[in-house]
Amino acid sequence: MFKNMLIVGCGLIGSSILRASLNKKTSKNFFVYEKLKKNIREIKKINKKIIILKKLDNKISDMDFVIIATPMSQYEKVIPRLNKYLSKKSLITDVGSTKQNISKLKKNSLSKSLDWIMSHPISGSEVSGPKYGSKSLFVNKWCIIFSDKNKIKQKKLVNFWKKIGSKVIIMDEKVHDKIFSITSHLPHLIAYNLIKTAQDFQKNQKKDVIKFSAGGLRDFSRIAASNEIMWRDIFFNNKNNIVSAINLFIKNLKSFKKNIENLDDKTLRKKLVNSKKVRQQILNLKQDIAKPDFGRDQN
Amino acid sequence: MFKNMLIVGCGLIGSSILRASLNKKTSKNFFVYEKLKKNIREIKKINKKIIILKKLDNKISDMDFVIIATPMSQYEKVIPRLNKYLSKKSLITDVGSTKQNISKLKKNSLSKSLDWIMSHPISGSEVSGPKYGSKSLFVNKWCIIFSDKNKIKQKKLVNFWKKIGSKVIIMDEKVHDKIFSITSHLPHLIAYNLIKTAQDFQKNQKKDVIKFSAGGLRDFSRIAASNEIMWRDIFFNNKNNIVSAINLFIKNLKSFKKNIENLDDKTLRKKLVNSKKVRQQILNLKQDIAKPDFGRDQN
Repeated sequence: MFKNMLIVGCGLIGSSILRASLNKKTSKNFFVYEKLKKNIREIKKINKKIIILKKLDNKISDMDFVIIATPMSQYEKVIPRLNKYLSKKSLITDVGSTKQNISKLKKNSLSKSLDWIMSHPISGSEVSGPKYGSKSLFVNKWCIIFSDKNKIKQKKLVNFWKKIGSKVIIMDEKVHDKIFSITSHLPHLIAYNLIKTAQDFQKNQKKDVIKFSAGGLRDFSRIAASNEIMWRDIFFNNKNNIVSAINLFIKNLKSFKKNIENLDDKTLRKKLVNSKKVRQQILNLKQDIAKPDFGRDQN
Repeated sequence: MFKNMLIVGCGLIGSSILRASLNKKTSKNFFVYEKLKKNIREIKKINKKIIILKKLDNKISDMDFVIIATPMSQYEKVIPRLNKYLSKKSLITDVGSTKQNISKLKKNSLSKSLDWIMSHPISGSEVSGPKYGSKSLFVNKWCIIFSDKNKIKQKKLVNFWKKIGSKVIIMDEKVHDKIFSITSHLPHLIAYNLIKTAQDFQKNQKKDVIKFSAGGLRDFSRIAASNEIMWRDIFFNNKNNIVSAINLFIKNLKSFKKNIENLDDKTLRKKLVNSKKVRQQILNLKQDIAKPDFGRDQN
């Protein structure tokens, strides 16, 4: 499919793309640009074919497919190298979690002769690094592609994600950033905030709460163990949507508080019952499995 | 160990106690009081030895161990029956999730000649009903017992929970209700509130958010599918502690919002890194396993 494929930044997502691509033979040659020594050690274990680049220099000029999988805050440093060494023949994409900022960055900093079509695979975990990567990370998961005027390259990109198992959907970046502020960014922030609240409580009350975390807190702690650089970048880059989401969340929480304070059985119960419907929708859409959770050691 | 053991209310927890007790032979005879026909059908499948009672009448006077496992809002209806038919020889316990209310109820309504020592097994799931019960639900899980002046019966109760696999700890009810407002009640309320916020967003913005719930929302939807009667009872009975927890949570969330609005990298990153420490503590305490989560279909 491609001749020379380059992955820039090879952590959990980059190394999963690499593993899936090797498995599906999406390219003749596979190049990785990675700086961290411990990551390079892990990547070398994956396959002997992989060529590790230590610099983004003239060696990259032959790449026909380039995937940027660094934290988004690194893109500004990567773009000048792409401008200098790549040409019109290459297809560039990224896997960043927010898109309006990347779209703006492309407009302002990317050479007009280059083609960068954005992607967002909806996959990941609380762990990071190539050690945890998996060739099946994208199988049956959504990958969002952002419409481009170069339809031939867009089609190539869609085919690539489909080949490694994704279900592809085309979306507008403004809509994307709004939707994911609710389905992903707010939930992560809420998990971080819940853990912070438990820490404050433990400090103020001098009571051992972590020990009894099995009743709910545990599940949030997993989400709140996600990579801090990735999430800082997301929170800052999707600031306006996330602030709106926080405001709506606080408004609703104050309303729940009022229901509890007033022992308002009818309203409270109606709300609790309604939220079960969302669970059923999520199961119907195969976004989760129906198997009950009793704590993961028993699953 | 016991001669006649009675479980009042046989849903997820009651039927799990029943299964575990049958397995460990904690009693000679096993009685269940349950009203729902579909529950009775499930319970009959568990073991032929089980005797189903349709009324709490003079048949219960021979019970030496009685476990109340109905929703807490049913306790008021159960107590007059216990007062009427039980005697000093019985040991009574419950599995309610909040304790100051039950303690008060005992003081105000329970016959002075009866011994009720409270328990709280820290186990459960988002599913309910005897269909989902399991004999290993309590294995290696905390069960909290509340100190009683009858130390012989207290010892009997501790031994019972240990026999079915629990790790037992003695606690004061005031401390208990504070701790669990943070580790369990607030997380559940937050999950319900996050789903409500996603529903409101979907309605206001007319955008399909549930479809893309794999990025975080999914995990909360599972928790927010928990039984509404049980959670209404918890929220109402632990009102003051939960309201304090909500206030602390909102204060912290507003602070996170400010960090994001001000692009305050240093403070935000410090908080995100700190919350990873809690995750490590939870893993060290064996309250969860370290296996990464990539969505449950891939685990």
